[in-house]
Amino acid sequence: MSYAKQMLETDSGATIDADLLARTIDALSDCAQACTADADVDLRESDVAEMRTCIRLCLDCADVCAATASVVSRQTAFATAVVGPLLDACARTCARCGDECRAHADMHAHCRVCEEACRRCEQACRELLAALA
Amino acid sequence: MSYAKQMLETDSGATIDADLLARTIDALSDCAQACTADADVDLRESDVAEMRTCIRLCLDCADVCAATASVVSRQTAFATAVVGPLLDACARTCARCGDECRAHADMHAHCRVCEEACRRCEQACRELLAALA
Amino acid sequence: MSYAKQMLETDSGATIDADLLARTIDALSDCAQACTADADVDLRESDVAEMRTCIRLCLDCADVCAATASVVSRQTAFATAVVGPLLDACARTCARCGDECRAHADMHAHCRVCEEACRRCEQACRELLAALA
Amino acid sequence: MSYAKQMLETDSGATIDADLLARTIDALSDCAQACTADADVDLRESDVAEMRTCIRLCLDCADVCAATASVVSRQTAFATAVVGPLLDACARTCARCGDECRAHADMHAHCRVCEEACRRCEQACRELLAALA
Repeated sequence: MSYAKQMLETDSGATIDADLLARTIDALSDCAQACTADADVDLRESDVAEMRTCIRLCLDCADVCAATASVVSRQTAFATAVVGPLLDACARTCARCGDECRAHADMHAHCRVCEEACRRCEQACRELLAALA
Repeated sequence: MSYAKQMLETDSGATIDADLLARTIDALSDCAQACTADADVDLRESDVAEMRTCIRLCLDCADVCAATASVVSRQTAFATAVVGPLLDACARTCARCGDECRAHADMHAHCRVCEEACRRCEQACRELLAALA
Repeated sequence: MSYAKQMLETDSGATIDADLLARTIDALSDCAQACTADADVDLRESDVAEMRTCIRLCLDCADVCAATASVVSRQTAFATAVVGPLLDACARTCARCGDECRAHADMHAHCRVCEEACRRCEQACRELLAALA
Repeated sequence: MSYAKQMLETDSGATIDADLLARTIDALSDCAQACTADADVDLRESDVAEMRTCIRLCLDCADVCAATASVVSRQTAFATAVVGPLLDACARTCARCGDECRAHADMHAHCRVCEEACRRCEQACRELLAALA
């Protein structure tokens, strides 16, 4: 069981479904890490000049997912009006980054792995957003 | 002159007005720092139990502003479709955090300073968003 | 299998043992998340005034673990002289935060969970540091 | 006057010299931003393959400076045993990143600007570390 899930199980004040929330937090942390690593492996490819857009989007996606993971981890004074737009921005960033990674997935296995992390994270953000509505 | 401005002046590939962009980056960095510091001073107040919402929002606002500052600092493959929703989410977070800080500004001078940083940052994000449209 | 492990398996340029590295990255991400969540639950406790040191250390530990996770995820131009002091600072922060969380573990189950994440992360950082030596 | 300085002037609990502390926080925020921007401009250079080490170090330096800025901004339960090793790791990272940027400064004006931000930040971290001793 992930620490996100364990923490939520000790937190009687959380009002959102703990399974969904823990899954989203885990997907956000995973995507941040995958994107950080993918940008780094992209940088060492012999076709690095072709990977510029991918590197840029992976760096952005890592930053946005990490911030969203932190915000979503907080239950104090939880307000959909604050969290909602960020989840939406994060889902859009994951979608765009996932598309770019897919464009390189046949050439670079690491981009295929990163695409999967982005898709899973986009999906989780959208499910949490729907649950908050 | 800030480093954001100096860096942009060496970057012939930037397509957005350098003054506006540097001002936004500086406002985002300033707001992230002010919110981190305000959450910390809030925590030491004797009425800390009354400051919970303020602390939570300051922590969120710091995370979102820091991520937005990084994303906006990148000009490679700049795409409004990615940056726009994040700037919007950031402006909304600053607005909400600024409102909460204002509610404590008479009691706590640090909340007044933090409110000002939030207002300036919200305004800068909205101006940049308008310029991208 | 974690994304950290999957990414490393696609990266022929990584020179460090992939199992150890993936375990460390996962422990760092987990600890960053557990500390962010613990600081937030601490904030809602009725004895919040007693939890100030714990909140402060959890926020620090989250920041340091997140930065260390990103740095350790990069294999390009890997240099122990850069990564080593950060891993050491991170292990020390986890140790101190873990001690503080233990002091509250009987009262607050979330601090017990957070202590465990800190201990595991401290241990992983020390093992990676030893492997780099 | 920077927000870091303004926030510290409202904080009667800070025990460190406010001028030195504010200068260090500003130098850390500036360096994080300059490094994020420099990695991005490096990525667009025609000699991007030669810039890999610089990009990697700038990304690391940005992460470490941002985390250190947050940690140093907190005065609650301030403990040199926690903050000291991080300041030392940050100074070392700035030193190494500054050296790498200098190696490209004749070719790339943005690397010269980034080197200056790294040197100023390294110096500020070392001065704060000395004041804490």
